[in-house]
Amino acid sequence: MKRKIQNKPIGIFDSGVGGLTVLKEVLKQLPNENIIYFGDTARVPYGSKSVETIKKFAMQDSSFLKSMDVKMIVVACNTVSSNAMNLLRENFDIPFVDVLLPNAMYASQVTRKKRIGVIGTPATIESGAYSKIIKKFNKSHKVFSLATPLLVPLAEEGLVENKATEIILRDYLKKLIKKDIDTLILGCTHYPLFERKIREISGDNVQVVNSARQTARTVKSMLEDLGMLNSDNKKGDIRFFLSDIPRNFRKIAQRFLKQNIAGKVSKIDIENY
Amino acid sequence: MKRKIQNKPIGIFDSGVGGLTVLKEVLKQLPNENIIYFGDTARVPYGSKSVETIKKFAMQDSSFLKSMDVKMIVVACNTVSSNAMNLLRENFDIPFVDVLLPNAMYASQVTRKKRIGVIGTPATIESGAYSKIIKKFNKSHKVFSLATPLLVPLAEEGLVENKATEIILRDYLKKLIKKDIDTLILGCTHYPLFERKIREISGDNVQVVNSARQTARTVKSMLEDLGMLNSDNKKGDIRFFLSDIPRNFRKIAQRFLKQNIAGKVSKIDIENY
Repeated sequence: MKRKIQNKPIGIFDSGVGGLTVLKEVLKQLPNENIIYFGDTARVPYGSKSVETIKKFAMQDSSFLKSMDVKMIVVACNTVSSNAMNLLRENFDIPFVDVLLPNAMYASQVTRKKRIGVIGTPATIESGAYSKIIKKFNKSHKVFSLATPLLVPLAEEGLVENKATEIILRDYLKKLIKKDIDTLILGCTHYPLFERKIREISGDNVQVVNSARQTARTVKSMLEDLGMLNSDNKKGDIRFFLSDIPRNFRKIAQRFLKQNIAGKVSKIDIENY
Repeated sequence: MKRKIQNKPIGIFDSGVGGLTVLKEVLKQLPNENIIYFGDTARVPYGSKSVETIKKFAMQDSSFLKSMDVKMIVVACNTVSSNAMNLLRENFDIPFVDVLLPNAMYASQVTRKKRIGVIGTPATIESGAYSKIIKKFNKSHKVFSLATPLLVPLAEEGLVENKATEIILRDYLKKLIKKDIDTLILGCTHYPLFERKIREISGDNVQVVNSARQTARTVKSMLEDLGMLNSDNKKGDIRFFLSDIPRNFRKIAQRFLKQNIAGKVSKIDIENY
């Protein structure tokens, strides 16, 4: 018997574990959905690599999720969202949600001074994607972007409450704060780990916009619009697939997910997709 | 006409650009050799990944160099040297030089207190390879190992003379210094970038052993022993192959190589090997 499309899983992928911050919000807003999470932990990080390589990896990640018969793919990675969405949407006949559009829309709405800061990986910032999309909503908005390449390794090492991390964050953020921004987009799914510290450094006059929450809202409303919400009245299953099972995976994942990994974790060879 | 084995190139590989510190020393000691350098820049870093994945990548890296008809393979990566040498030597009929053995031997010889510190990636340190090999030379030597995972991203970002880097280095090193070591092995080919700072923090009583120099000496003496030194009396060619051409590659490479990249840089798809 063919499975009803509503009851198929949602696919979520990221270069590694950062996308778990998106998964966490999706679980909160859509507890009945079945989910397949793929993290490309063998090739993480993406954000310092070339656009050509990012595109190739994004195609393989999506092919894997497609092979798992998902009803929708959530690109829980700002680097892929900034560099490969046209390619993915052209090549797969399935709805995609990326993290860029929900963030950019939300930031455009909440800014009063029309001065928005964005931090992200070098690949996200160099793509100019946030700036282009925000200016499409409103030409008068000013966008100040900054690549903050050390935040991914610091997050993966769990160095959040740490003197060196604080110095690095202050060094990065002062460049944006002096531009008189009132809204700051955390343009990388790893960055919510630093959200408290970033709020502290930025002060009360800066609204901090976190990828995960807005993205999960978009997933929910798109599933509603498409009539694809899961109709089972029970808690969904979560399955994790990784291209490498890194040392201490469950500990690292717990840091991002803010709960224990409950589902099954399997390893796949992403180079075959 | 078949090329004489002496005039074939030496192959050198690393997970990324760290191995360029080894290349630099090889060029200095063996200026007539032709060299093929492969950096797996699409999948860097290796040191935080699982042993299984490191082995798979090391096999592919060696297969690529073998396909380029090299006379010897230099594993300019401590993570691979600590985790995959048996596998490589079993699978390829070609001499290998790794970075572990030359470093461990040298440190064993220079220590007076018989107390040696080692810093490296998580995969290098967890393998226990340095400790095992040093104790094989001399059972009474004490080895104190410490994983220092942030030094690779800091080196790749060029954050050498930086306040945050200094705090991170001091935090790491104080754990080893209080063990009263008199010798410190930089067990990662990225770490020579911090050598000056590490010497300053460790003080005059600690000898700092750098992977690159000892490894290049081993390459030279092994080629001499095997009668495989290049017999051409002219400057050798260098060719670079990478699995991804990262943004600012030449700038980053210049930082490690301490000179401009003179050879041709090509991209290959390492997943095909």
